[in-house]
Amino acid sequence: MKYRAKIEVSLKPGHSDPEGETTARLLKELGYTVSAVNVSKVYTVFLEAETSKEAATKAEEMCRKLLANPTKDNYTIAIEEQK
Amino acid sequence: MKYRAKIEVSLKPGHSDPEGETTARLLKELGYTVSAVNVSKVYTVFLEAETSKEAATKAEEMCRKLLANPTKDNYTIAIEEQK
Repeated sequence: MKYRAKIEVSLKPGHSDPEGETTARLLKELGYTVSAVNVSKVYTVFLEAETSKEAATKAEEMCRKLLANPTKDNYTIAIEEQK
Repeated sequence: MKYRAKIEVSLKPGHSDPEGETTARLLKELGYTVSAVNVSKVYTVFLEAETSKEAATKAEEMCRKLLANPTKDNYTIAIEEQK
């Protein structure tokens, strides 16, 4: 079965997010009342697995092995079956 | 009122996504059956607006003015009221 894993990797609270800070500053300069901007990354992974549960387990492993840094990143995973 | 706009900026189909290609290659090297990986970016913007509709309009403007490149990017916006 084909699945789509949407994996969002974001910084843990307290970690410096220079891209978010710069974006917030630029939006303020454009006249918007913005208190903060956080930037995160989404990996949409098209993968093969037997079940949705197995796809979630694989996506979790991918985060631990490659996509997320456990020291500074949080991640969320959403699995969808592909038609 | 305070709102949180979650703005996801992704590449339009057909545009080269070298980060996604590299990630797919590395996941394959780790033994996963992956057909593709797309990488996109999420800006979580904490902003002030009178109504949810106004927050959405502002977020749309932010995309056009700063966050997305109309030539190569698609974007989606989700607005949530902040407690």
